[in-house]
Amino acid sequence: MRDDSTTNDSTTNAGGTHSGTTRNAWDDLPIRDELRGQSPYGAPQLDVPVRLNTNENPYPLPEALVDRIAERVREAARDLNRYPDRDAVELRTELARYLSRTAGHQVTRANVWAANGSNEVLQQLLQTFGGPGRTAIGFEPSYSMHALIARGTGTGWISGPRNEDFTIDVDAARAVIARERPDVVFITSPNNPTGTAVDAGTVLALHDAAQAARPSMVVVDEAYGEFSHHASLLPLIGGRPHLVLSRTMSKAFGAAGLRLGYLAADPAVVDAVQLVRLPYHLSSVTQATALAALEHTDTLLGYVAQLKSERDRIVTELRALGFDVTDSDANFVQFGRFADSHTAWQHILDRGVLVRDNGVPGWLRVSAGTPAENDAFLDAVRELKKEHDA
Amino acid sequence: MRDDSTTNDSTTNAGGTHSGTTRNAWDDLPIRDELRGQSPYGAPQLDVPVRLNTNENPYPLPEALVDRIAERVREAARDLNRYPDRDAVELRTELARYLSRTAGHQVTRANVWAANGSNEVLQQLLQTFGGPGRTAIGFEPSYSMHALIARGTGTGWISGPRNEDFTIDVDAARAVIARERPDVVFITSPNNPTGTAVDAGTVLALHDAAQAARPSMVVVDEAYGEFSHHASLLPLIGGRPHLVLSRTMSKAFGAAGLRLGYLAADPAVVDAVQLVRLPYHLSSVTQATALAALEHTDTLLGYVAQLKSERDRIVTELRALGFDVTDSDANFVQFGRFADSHTAWQHILDRGVLVRDNGVPGWLRVSAGTPAENDAFLDAVRELKKEHDA
Repeated sequence: MRDDSTTNDSTTNAGGTHSGTTRNAWDDLPIRDELRGQSPYGAPQLDVPVRLNTNENPYPLPEALVDRIAERVREAARDLNRYPDRDAVELRTELARYLSRTAGHQVTRANVWAANGSNEVLQQLLQTFGGPGRTAIGFEPSYSMHALIARGTGTGWISGPRNEDFTIDVDAARAVIARERPDVVFITSPNNPTGTAVDAGTVLALHDAAQAARPSMVVVDEAYGEFSHHASLLPLIGGRPHLVLSRTMSKAFGAAGLRLGYLAADPAVVDAVQLVRLPYHLSSVTQATALAALEHTDTLLGYVAQLKSERDRIVTELRALGFDVTDSDANFVQFGRFADSHTAWQHILDRGVLVRDNGVPGWLRVSAGTPAENDAFLDAVRELKKEHDA
Repeated sequence: MRDDSTTNDSTTNAGGTHSGTTRNAWDDLPIRDELRGQSPYGAPQLDVPVRLNTNENPYPLPEALVDRIAERVREAARDLNRYPDRDAVELRTELARYLSRTAGHQVTRANVWAANGSNEVLQQLLQTFGGPGRTAIGFEPSYSMHALIARGTGTGWISGPRNEDFTIDVDAARAVIARERPDVVFITSPNNPTGTAVDAGTVLALHDAAQAARPSMVVVDEAYGEFSHHASLLPLIGGRPHLVLSRTMSKAFGAAGLRLGYLAADPAVVDAVQLVRLPYHLSSVTQATALAALEHTDTLLGYVAQLKSERDRIVTELRALGFDVTDSDANFVQFGRFADSHTAWQHILDRGVLVRDNGVPGWLRVSAGTPAENDAFLDAVRELKKEHDA
């Protein structure tokens, strides 16, 4: 572990296979066979002036919201000896109100479920609808936690294809779904790490193919949905009980430290995950903090608008510099192509800017920061370009 | 779900099998076969004057601690746009200090891992050391979440025996371990719902039998450890890399609403669970709140001393009334025996006191509350007794 050793920081940036040269502390323990040779997921946490590697929102919460969080948590702390509301009724009601207002489709708390980060939401979905003897598919490169949570829940993982430009090839995707008959289909829109949005027609085509094949559950991971040029895919859940939308407060609400993810779906899906959710999984302080943040939605969505504009500026300037840039609907930008992306990553880091080497060969990913942070990043890649052209 | 329906509150108090008479909302969804016919875990949440059914600590946090929580959370909220410390270094350091000071064995943060409630700790352990094709054993009746988390992680469950007086029969336990060769052995001390402590000799005998059989991991669940007449079993982890101690802040720290569980073990175990833990699983507000509570340890342990004394009083008075009472080392008491424990539960509830019908035939469980709450409970059972004797 990072904090216990300076010599054994074996964490890779994508939870990949361990190099195999160092011995792990757990090698003598009776861990599951499929965990052997693996490394924990997680980006390097380096002390660098400009951190643009984990798609965090660069804007701290406004002071009025910080006050409100302290106030609501103080209230919750007075009752902290009691278990939290196991069903998070007030929070789910407010999340439903937020979705109804911003995502083009009316939902109620019966459609919404919340957990400690969308990772836990996805884990609950795979425990309910995936698991041993079942499979899930994602179209890669995509959010690497999908495959890792599949592994953690004993769900077989199928890596589906993407086009060269990182869009989903509908015919190829339909073919692999028909052949593999997965129990769960992940569609990430906007996709991480590429930034690529998926249109409603593609989602419907894959959904229908999946229903014809098994039927299976289709999970649309919209963690970066608020940053998209396109409308939310939420309306698609109407009349489709096997379609689930997953969201998070980490990005648009500037609350990565809060760990609050949620899903919207048919009420039967919400009921079904109750069978596997750990009771009282969501603490009173988490519920109180999330409720405070939801009171400040409009201010926080103002930051989202700024970040979208900065994201578009990064795309434009990188292209002007001659980089290849993937169209982005998220709060980050994938750029390249590099003969050796790790060396490019290190060069940028040497200039005080931490971006993400996601393991997509030839590409790097940069989160949209504040204007000043983005300037620092653009200066760093400008120098990189100069050296390369020299 | 409780909040969405008044007619379908099918939740049982032990996550047992559904009665089968009502249709569930999820019946048409492709959920895993082993989840069909099940109900979500959770005690009924009823609005009753005296709630002694979930082993909560009846004492609200002192106002100075409430202030300190608000202060620390305010500080954390200023950085909430950033991910939390993924490794919870400060919190693990303070938990290690607490254990070293109170549990008779020196540990460091390298020995300690924390998660959202001990349920999540246990889930991570079963994802690492149990899972598909593996089995876990518990000696029942015991904490029913052990079996449910096993089910949720695809781990086969073996129900081990107890003596008539709810102690563990060492020879019988050794025999079943030798025969079944489980990958994980759960030992709950003090045991829930019976209150029964397990001595170090028994733990060692089961540990050694488990090592001879496979070797397997032995998890000592000490959620109620601070309430015991006996010393913690923590020292047993020394030199035994397959022995894990699990704890919680829910009970002794009066923080059921916080959801903070932790384990102490060989550092290799802490490293191993990194392979399955969801990254950034523990929010900044949870870490801040737990750290504040740990600053007030001595005050909170003062409440524990009061609760132990009240627990002993309940045992004495129930025995004086002629009830059978299981020796208790926890903050609750198991009492009986009833020809029909559910009817007795309802009679006590009719007098405004909610206790727990855990599904142990003939027995009920009552949490130690404040002196006034315990008086109300004792009055209720006194009347019950009178009616019965009349």
